[in-house]
Amino acid sequence: MQLGIIGLGRMGGNIARRLMKNGHGTVVYDRAQQAVQALTADGSVGAADLADLVSKLAAPRAIWVMLPAGAITEGTINTLAGLMSPGDVIIDGGNTNWKDDVRRAKSLAAKGLDYIDVGTSGGVWGLERGYCMMIGGKAETVTRLDPIFATLAPGMGDVPRTPNREGHDPRAEQGYIHAGPPGAGHFVKMIHNGIEYGLMQAYAEGFDILRSANAEGKAEGESFDFKMADIAEVWRRGSVVTSWLLDLTASAMASDSELTEYSGFVEDSGEGRWTIEAAIDQAVPAEVLTAALYTRFRSRQEHTYAEKILSAMRKGFGGHVEPKAVEPKA
Amino acid sequence: MQLGIIGLGRMGGNIARRLMKNGHGTVVYDRAQQAVQALTADGSVGAADLADLVSKLAAPRAIWVMLPAGAITEGTINTLAGLMSPGDVIIDGGNTNWKDDVRRAKSLAAKGLDYIDVGTSGGVWGLERGYCMMIGGKAETVTRLDPIFATLAPGMGDVPRTPNREGHDPRAEQGYIHAGPPGAGHFVKMIHNGIEYGLMQAYAEGFDILRSANAEGKAEGESFDFKMADIAEVWRRGSVVTSWLLDLTASAMASDSELTEYSGFVEDSGEGRWTIEAAIDQAVPAEVLTAALYTRFRSRQEHTYAEKILSAMRKGFGGHVEPKAVEPKA
Amino acid sequence: MQLGIIGLGRMGGNIARRLMKNGHGTVVYDRAQQAVQALTADGSVGAADLADLVSKLAAPRAIWVMLPAGAITEGTINTLAGLMSPGDVIIDGGNTNWKDDVRRAKSLAAKGLDYIDVGTSGGVWGLERGYCMMIGGKAETVTRLDPIFATLAPGMGDVPRTPNREGHDPRAEQGYIHAGPPGAGHFVKMIHNGIEYGLMQAYAEGFDILRSANAEGKAEGESFDFKMADIAEVWRRGSVVTSWLLDLTASAMASDSELTEYSGFVEDSGEGRWTIEAAIDQAVPAEVLTAALYTRFRSRQEHTYAEKILSAMRKGFGGHVEPKAVEPKA
Amino acid sequence: MQLGIIGLGRMGGNIARRLMKNGHGTVVYDRAQQAVQALTADGSVGAADLADLVSKLAAPRAIWVMLPAGAITEGTINTLAGLMSPGDVIIDGGNTNWKDDVRRAKSLAAKGLDYIDVGTSGGVWGLERGYCMMIGGKAETVTRLDPIFATLAPGMGDVPRTPNREGHDPRAEQGYIHAGPPGAGHFVKMIHNGIEYGLMQAYAEGFDILRSANAEGKAEGESFDFKMADIAEVWRRGSVVTSWLLDLTASAMASDSELTEYSGFVEDSGEGRWTIEAAIDQAVPAEVLTAALYTRFRSRQEHTYAEKILSAMRKGFGGHVEPKAVEPKA
Repeated sequence: MQLGIIGLGRMGGNIARRLMKNGHGTVVYDRAQQAVQALTADGSVGAADLADLVSKLAAPRAIWVMLPAGAITEGTINTLAGLMSPGDVIIDGGNTNWKDDVRRAKSLAAKGLDYIDVGTSGGVWGLERGYCMMIGGKAETVTRLDPIFATLAPGMGDVPRTPNREGHDPRAEQGYIHAGPPGAGHFVKMIHNGIEYGLMQAYAEGFDILRSANAEGKAEGESFDFKMADIAEVWRRGSVVTSWLLDLTASAMASDSELTEYSGFVEDSGEGRWTIEAAIDQAVPAEVLTAALYTRFRSRQEHTYAEKILSAMRKGFGGHVEPKAVEPKA
Repeated sequence: MQLGIIGLGRMGGNIARRLMKNGHGTVVYDRAQQAVQALTADGSVGAADLADLVSKLAAPRAIWVMLPAGAITEGTINTLAGLMSPGDVIIDGGNTNWKDDVRRAKSLAAKGLDYIDVGTSGGVWGLERGYCMMIGGKAETVTRLDPIFATLAPGMGDVPRTPNREGHDPRAEQGYIHAGPPGAGHFVKMIHNGIEYGLMQAYAEGFDILRSANAEGKAEGESFDFKMADIAEVWRRGSVVTSWLLDLTASAMASDSELTEYSGFVEDSGEGRWTIEAAIDQAVPAEVLTAALYTRFRSRQEHTYAEKILSAMRKGFGGHVEPKAVEPKA
Repeated sequence: MQLGIIGLGRMGGNIARRLMKNGHGTVVYDRAQQAVQALTADGSVGAADLADLVSKLAAPRAIWVMLPAGAITEGTINTLAGLMSPGDVIIDGGNTNWKDDVRRAKSLAAKGLDYIDVGTSGGVWGLERGYCMMIGGKAETVTRLDPIFATLAPGMGDVPRTPNREGHDPRAEQGYIHAGPPGAGHFVKMIHNGIEYGLMQAYAEGFDILRSANAEGKAEGESFDFKMADIAEVWRRGSVVTSWLLDLTASAMASDSELTEYSGFVEDSGEGRWTIEAAIDQAVPAEVLTAALYTRFRSRQEHTYAEKILSAMRKGFGGHVEPKAVEPKA
Repeated sequence: MQLGIIGLGRMGGNIARRLMKNGHGTVVYDRAQQAVQALTADGSVGAADLADLVSKLAAPRAIWVMLPAGAITEGTINTLAGLMSPGDVIIDGGNTNWKDDVRRAKSLAAKGLDYIDVGTSGGVWGLERGYCMMIGGKAETVTRLDPIFATLAPGMGDVPRTPNREGHDPRAEQGYIHAGPPGAGHFVKMIHNGIEYGLMQAYAEGFDILRSANAEGKAEGESFDFKMADIAEVWRRGSVVTSWLLDLTASAMASDSELTEYSGFVEDSGEGRWTIEAAIDQAVPAEVLTAALYTRFRSRQEHTYAEKILSAMRKGFGGHVEPKAVEPKA
């Protein structure tokens, strides 16, 4: 099958490569012509601009947009909409807010264009492991593009089958699902990332307590010398907390259990925030996912105004300004 | 009535003064003889050591220990126990863990000594406003010492009466209660402080969001120039969030709404921690009180190991080390 | 001064009464003509519909809309906009989202109409205590309406003055502020309510732990018989946690410390949710305010799907379905 | 090697079986003689009581106690201590608090007995998958018992090796570690369980939001029909949130995505609570792990006193009792 791909960063480039490795044709474009050349060297047809890309694809066309969510993706899709023909489909594989998908699908439908949103997980490991995909859009379009999705997905691999899956969608076992109408794909991906934050924070807090227990000066019998790398490793085998995120943690700690290369400033992306907004919209308590987001907010400030207010109140009733005293833990 | 007082810091000294101002006799001791002299200048009888203090009190004696909780208070009470006579009473007015009260009361009772625990709120304002007291111990002893408690308490003052209080303990309206057996006083005070943390954090977060909304570079129509001092002030009158802590906040902000004198490092005391332990022991969810404690823990570290672990995982699946980028908010 | 008032519920009706008591003229309308009659009996001029209301006011008109936020307020304002003249002003005193204010002010300005948003705190106590008001809109309009605001505000009353307020807006001490451009009033009110949630939850958790400590069957020395009503009362005098919300709690507990008339289902309003959305938009950690919102979400469900998932996992690794066992605490 | 085992529940029985399957000798005891007979049928030597068990083991003896933590384990170990000889070792494989380990190891050492604490993860899957073990105690004793631990551990299996593990303890890759002195094993296991709570709650909240998005009556374009079982399944392949807990979730949902067999009442065990106490002792913020514990506390109550207090305050300032209105979500 033939697919146009716009945006040849780590994700877009590897998507093209995984497709070509499995016999699909790709026409590719990126603002950086270097990136286009790298792909044409691997077998892609290169395009000079969006119009060129569209012209090099046979109708009905399918173009996968793999760009930063927001204005860049929006602008590209708007331009494509003016170049493509009824029956064509635009696929947004980026980290778009599902509400934008709902809006776009409606406005593109008015022009006879189809719109598919794909929440794509797998990061830098996707070329090798395949991409877990959560797809939103019209059922027949998702079905038409199935060869693409089936190729990009990880497949069953050596992950054991879940019992009692008869009667459920067989695509889920291959690593992709048609989640529902436009927006459904990115909604599920959004929740995926929200969960990811919570999982990460759970491990992080646990290891923080362990490492803190190593601190000197504790009372007799209460000081330990825990080896973070060994603990992460041992939990990978037979414990209840085994996971891919733990694998990554064990790997990082095997190299440097103090993680000295990291500053501690942690970014967050839209999906984590949108997950909380969805929880609030639906009146679902989401304590853990929210706390995980907030620790990232906090990590990016030296001190908060909130903390100074606490000290100001304490001075108000206690009569003294608190000393600045960092506990030198991390 | 006559009261011995040990520990003449801000609290102990003012307790002595408030008692003398109202006609009670005080015999005082502090390791720092300077503090003793300051009180004798105000009318107290000074003591050279604990034995001297005990000898200068008429039986049955009552001695109020107002020292840092923990080893210092424990050691002092043990020494006193060896010097005092059956029928005497030791009052611990400090920030002792209620479980220590339970233990002590039992061991002192074996020697015929009474033990009273008093959770004392009021801070540096107590001399003027009076002390809110939560008292644990035997009912008859609390009754015997009533002249002391009634004097130290704020009294009804100009705080409006709560309707329907007929049939309830009239002492509560005067600002002190007999909360129950030994430990009950400090238990109630512990919860008081736990609540205090939660209240403080609620205000702090609210003002933090307000101040953050002042930040430059927002989209048109979304930037404000809120005056923190005026907002704190206006809420003092007729709003739902009026409180003494808000009064203190308004006062601090009136002088410097940026609170530049504060570093943002915030201490916590035992009571905040013990409150959470009590919640956990009793399986009571205490999300807000706990979150308030944790923000203080976090305020005292530059960065946590937990945060570095998050970055390490993010590198694991995303392929890059996050840059160090402080958001310059506070 | 003359003010039109639309919406004569508890808030709108009492606003009219407080204005009339202080010599202002009011023209009032409500869908329920009964409510209009009640006010005309108190001295208002009644209106049969919106057009009638507008016609009975002298230009430049000022109309205070005190209706449920959302579609009802929006529709009313749109209708008014078609009836009013350049130079007139619409005041939204309800619980509107500040983003709606920004939008409305812009669209009304195009018709020469002014728009003022007033966050109004005080609830059913406002007639007596006055209303704490946070006002957004153009400075000159706020100044023109000052007689109205000054009358509705609580004034200094017997609340002690905050030191060092020289140089700050004197209106804050009277209980109202001009918070900034359109939307600023409701933004500050939003945060006020967010804080309110946090404060309420802090007290609620503290008392929950206290009451739980009363439960029978504890080990010796660990069981108490705390009197909730007395504890709430004693904290009202001289403690750090005095507040109006505590006054209300003490009052409720004095009548029935078990609070048996309440089911435990707790509503939340828009402001609590919007506060969290603002925190997330601005990347401000707001753990306490969020936790306070979530406990309300949780209170309105018998059980969550989340909880069933926990049990399902536990069965997965532990091999048994958990029994249904309510802890009969509340 | 020969091992005595006390407590033949699911864990203890399978530990015996896994050892025998690999050529070790076991002498077993349980209060329920039925359980002993089941094991002797599988090749164990049965014991009639603790003295009999000790007498049937060759010195230096090793006895694994696999009983409910607390009084039962404590009593059993005390009895064993009176029966065993210097050089013997008692292994506590249950869910004991690490502070009890520290205390016990000290008191047993005075009698010449060794003490090993083993945090054992694996649940009902251990017989098949092996047990992940975190071991505390003297290094030479742990080394002496290595044949036992190596057999019980999962081994490397098909879990891929972590890069850069040269120089780290090779046992971790086999699924067991010597974590440190007495108590270290249960400390690490405690944190393991704390993390487990956090992970579980993260998934639970995410799926709760997804399912809630399925609710009817949403505005156009915002209603979905997500298939929980397919979403859980697809995330098992190639996504960032793959884990064993997700496998269990997918399995439960494949059978019944509504999880109707579960009531929603969720138990918690000591480790989850002790994890938070350790965090508080060490001043480590643990928002996620704590929130995960609290949702379990909350799940076991119909309503909290805290919630009624919120309603009482709301009546205080709003003037009406809230209606009882369950949102029929789960």
